[in-house]
Amino acid sequence: MIGRIDHVGIAVASIEEARRFWESLGLVIDHVEEVPQEGVRVAMLVVGESRIELLESTRPDSPIATFLARRGPGIHHLCLASDDVRADDARLRAAGTELLRPEPTRGAGGCWIQFVHPKSAGGVLVELSQDGEERA
Amino acid sequence: MIGRIDHVGIAVASIEEARRFWESLGLVIDHVEEVPQEGVRVAMLVVGESRIELLESTRPDSPIATFLARRGPGIHHLCLASDDVRADDARLRAAGTELLRPEPTRGAGGCWIQFVHPKSAGGVLVELSQDGEERA
Repeated sequence: MIGRIDHVGIAVASIEEARRFWESLGLVIDHVEEVPQEGVRVAMLVVGESRIELLESTRPDSPIATFLARRGPGIHHLCLASDDVRADDARLRAAGTELLRPEPTRGAGGCWIQFVHPKSAGGVLVELSQDGEERA
Repeated sequence: MIGRIDHVGIAVASIEEARRFWESLGLVIDHVEEVPQEGVRVAMLVVGESRIELLESTRPDSPIATFLARRGPGIHHLCLASDDVRADDARLRAAGTELLRPEPTRGAGGCWIQFVHPKSAGGVLVELSQDGEERA
């Protein structure tokens, strides 16, 4: 079951530059982390039960670098918090939805994650994420 | 102060077609409404304290029709719930942020809304919305 928007991922050329706007709204960066396997540095701003994630590429062949080259900075993906990503994976697959990975994988912070291909989700890259501290 | 993600607005060619994917995730359409002044029909799906809004154009010169023609279906804007849009408007303006309207206007459901130009928000069209039932 989907319980909340986990985060909105935004591709930025530079976290140091992009953060100024979000901070001017009163939002606060919770922390910044590197995710080497994805080639990104991520700054997380808390907004209620959700987060805004600023995604900066750390290598020229990363998915974020490719996105920036093709479309420029902006919203990259929408992540929904699920209480059972394996069940979602099976149900979506059975319905003919195209998923990006053969099965859910471990993401940052030990989450289980899966992605829905934008062509199965009306042009939106949808991430599903389940963490160990999932809210009831 | 920004308290939560109010909604993520997604431009779709057809609500009837696009809703199938979101409903396959278990999300439920709360209601569908027309907003004639914006030239859109809006379907709202509740996700925790937020909503996903599917935006279908109802006339060929609407902002959503223009967006679809230029970029295809996908995420159109990010709306943050504020407890004081007039104060945000003044503070952002003083910081040199470009806003789309001369002052906050009334939106659907009697909300006060304002938009930040994407060029001032890292490529993201940001809506700020304040309603009469704003959570504390």
